[in-house]
Amino acid sequence: MMNILVLGGDGYCGWPTALHLSQSGHNVAVVDNFCRRLWDHELGAQTLTPIRPLPERINAWERLSGKTIKTFVGDVTNFHFLSDVIVECEPDAIVHFAEQRAAPYSMIDREHAIFTQVSNVVGTLNVLFAIKEVQPACHLVKLGTMGEYGTPNIDIEEGFIRIQHNGREDLLPFPKQPGSFYHLSKVHDSHNIAFCCKIWGIRATDLNQGVVYGTLTSEIERDEALINRFDYDEVFGTALNRFCAQAAVGHPLTVYGKGGQTRGFLDIRDTVRCIELACLNPPALGEFRVFNQFTEQFSVLQLAQMVQTVGKKFGLNVSIDHLPDPRVEAEEHYYNAKHTKLVDLGLRPHLLSESLLDSLVNVAVRYQDRVDQSLFLPRVDWRKTRNDRKRKPTHAKATAAGESVSAD
Amino acid sequence: MMNILVLGGDGYCGWPTALHLSQSGHNVAVVDNFCRRLWDHELGAQTLTPIRPLPERINAWERLSGKTIKTFVGDVTNFHFLSDVIVECEPDAIVHFAEQRAAPYSMIDREHAIFTQVSNVVGTLNVLFAIKEVQPACHLVKLGTMGEYGTPNIDIEEGFIRIQHNGREDLLPFPKQPGSFYHLSKVHDSHNIAFCCKIWGIRATDLNQGVVYGTLTSEIERDEALINRFDYDEVFGTALNRFCAQAAVGHPLTVYGKGGQTRGFLDIRDTVRCIELACLNPPALGEFRVFNQFTEQFSVLQLAQMVQTVGKKFGLNVSIDHLPDPRVEAEEHYYNAKHTKLVDLGLRPHLLSESLLDSLVNVAVRYQDRVDQSLFLPRVDWRKTRNDRKRKPTHAKATAAGESVSAD
Repeated sequence: MMNILVLGGDGYCGWPTALHLSQSGHNVAVVDNFCRRLWDHELGAQTLTPIRPLPERINAWERLSGKTIKTFVGDVTNFHFLSDVIVECEPDAIVHFAEQRAAPYSMIDREHAIFTQVSNVVGTLNVLFAIKEVQPACHLVKLGTMGEYGTPNIDIEEGFIRIQHNGREDLLPFPKQPGSFYHLSKVHDSHNIAFCCKIWGIRATDLNQGVVYGTLTSEIERDEALINRFDYDEVFGTALNRFCAQAAVGHPLTVYGKGGQTRGFLDIRDTVRCIELACLNPPALGEFRVFNQFTEQFSVLQLAQMVQTVGKKFGLNVSIDHLPDPRVEAEEHYYNAKHTKLVDLGLRPHLLSESLLDSLVNVAVRYQDRVDQSLFLPRVDWRKTRNDRKRKPTHAKATAAGESVSAD
Repeated sequence: MMNILVLGGDGYCGWPTALHLSQSGHNVAVVDNFCRRLWDHELGAQTLTPIRPLPERINAWERLSGKTIKTFVGDVTNFHFLSDVIVECEPDAIVHFAEQRAAPYSMIDREHAIFTQVSNVVGTLNVLFAIKEVQPACHLVKLGTMGEYGTPNIDIEEGFIRIQHNGREDLLPFPKQPGSFYHLSKVHDSHNIAFCCKIWGIRATDLNQGVVYGTLTSEIERDEALINRFDYDEVFGTALNRFCAQAAVGHPLTVYGKGGQTRGFLDIRDTVRCIELACLNPPALGEFRVFNQFTEQFSVLQLAQMVQTVGKKFGLNVSIDHLPDPRVEAEEHYYNAKHTKLVDLGLRPHLLSESLLDSLVNVAVRYQDRVDQSLFLPRVDWRKTRNDRKRKPTHAKATAAGESVSAD
């Protein structure tokens, strides 16, 4: 049994992780400042699933499981708050999800780019300083992203690559080519964490996570009050979840460009298990360890076609739209990323199956009345420095001169 | 003739660069918020040379050369200020020195680490957004550092390395292993700049500069009122300058550890010429270009020994102290960094010679009455999260329990 502090424990990955670790017998506490709920208000969006306030979720879990999860409300960019929490909890591991996690959000405009980089980088620096100062043996389990690597024309290794050059060789950090101000913030974090492990002898695992899909875990399923977020909007909705919501309401699936963009993906049930495996198998003091946390590679078009196939079973007529890509990225490219280290620690992946897709489409169909179709189309264009983050009614689009609201 | 805006134009490299570009016939304006002068007050230190206030310097230059340098006082982290300046100046090139540039300053404590990373990263993001929004053809000439690369066991290339891996190959960003929160901030900047060139089609040159020595350029020499900074304290003083000041007053040269730490170095006369060469030869729109800006490699111990030799000519008895290294770094390592791109553009290096060292020691001897020897010893220890940035009188050291003021 470990003491584990989950930063960002009210979020899409943080909440099911907190439940899973609690169920596994660990002493879990969560920290959150509810900024993710605030951004829904900012964007005029909401999760497809009607999530409950954190105290209600936690009470439901206590009632069901008999296990307590302590809550600390505050911001990790506030060092004194964070440090006090760590003093009180004496964590063996800190799982750090408490960052702005959407690429499009970071690309809205200068303010959002700076907010994303400053709050992510400062939050992680605070965690590092707090660990060194008050809990130096604590293991930092930090959520990074596969997007740190970009799409190089060589195989992607797990964090480090052995390079032979002019007759010499070294094992060096894998070169990074992140594709948004958000992905850049994770690269900045990774460099900062590696450095602090080296100078202070603390330990960290950087989990370069792929795109997560799904909403249910075995804990979440136990009660409606535990329900998890399911984002389908263009800013926070990940590709597969968004496609399921689109299929449920008869909206064409919004594939950006050719759809040959290939990425690593994983089921949220594997996210929570990977976090637990990382916690249970800490690195040595002073070690900076990197795992690529995903289970399968797909192109975006492949995912859309799978949803189309499953949709037929539900009697849904699912079409696929190829929109101009609002991002600046290769629409066709080589992609082969290693992901064996978590499997070596015991991960048994939930591979994407028709039955999982059935269940996802089912969730979407169940809550289809909550779908706001105006949230589907991309409004944040990587090529512009100022995007309008608020959706506008369709009839108003023609009048928005000089400030496009779609990916044109 | 180009319009060139020098951000940080009151500083050690910025001021001589502004003069050199002005002398070469360019239309130069400088931006500064005088934070470098402020930090001297914070640290209880001052430049060896009695520099004049910026208006006095600029007036002297106008009197001598007949050339005007416009001044804008403000902070590049203030976007609206910066953007207005760019609108007014319509620069063909922006030379960006306006960052906190000392590794030890960034390692003082959490506040200084965060200040360094936030102000450097936000300042550079503001410059990038402002270029895209108001002057998209403008060439960003950004000062980075050779310290971004660390000390890999392979040759260091200029920004990019061709990697063969599992039968495939790609040209990728050279892996970064920065050695302080300051060096990390420059790595963050480099990633941000590369990304903005890609998505917005703007152009930038990232100059990974070595350690600069010297204080005189042909413009600075023309009048005492133009005199440049000469920092010799452990926080802002670069190694060779500090050694010259130490030699002048009979203080042992403070070599950290074995002194086998090898770095790239350059004369400040080459700094100003490199900047001009970069400006005169801009990259294509959308190109992110990296030059390694140094001329020779030395180990710290080699530099100390050279100062020792020259000191003898001055009748100075120069000894060398090996202090425990306050930094976490390899004290002996392979180092071979490429630096041909600026030479290809026409740089004719001023190599470190005995006559240059004579002139440096001369400057130090001339101002020896201004030397405060309590500023020589390292007080900022990489292994601590809280260092005392204020020097204390020697007799007080023993009482500073729990908060060491030297590199112990």
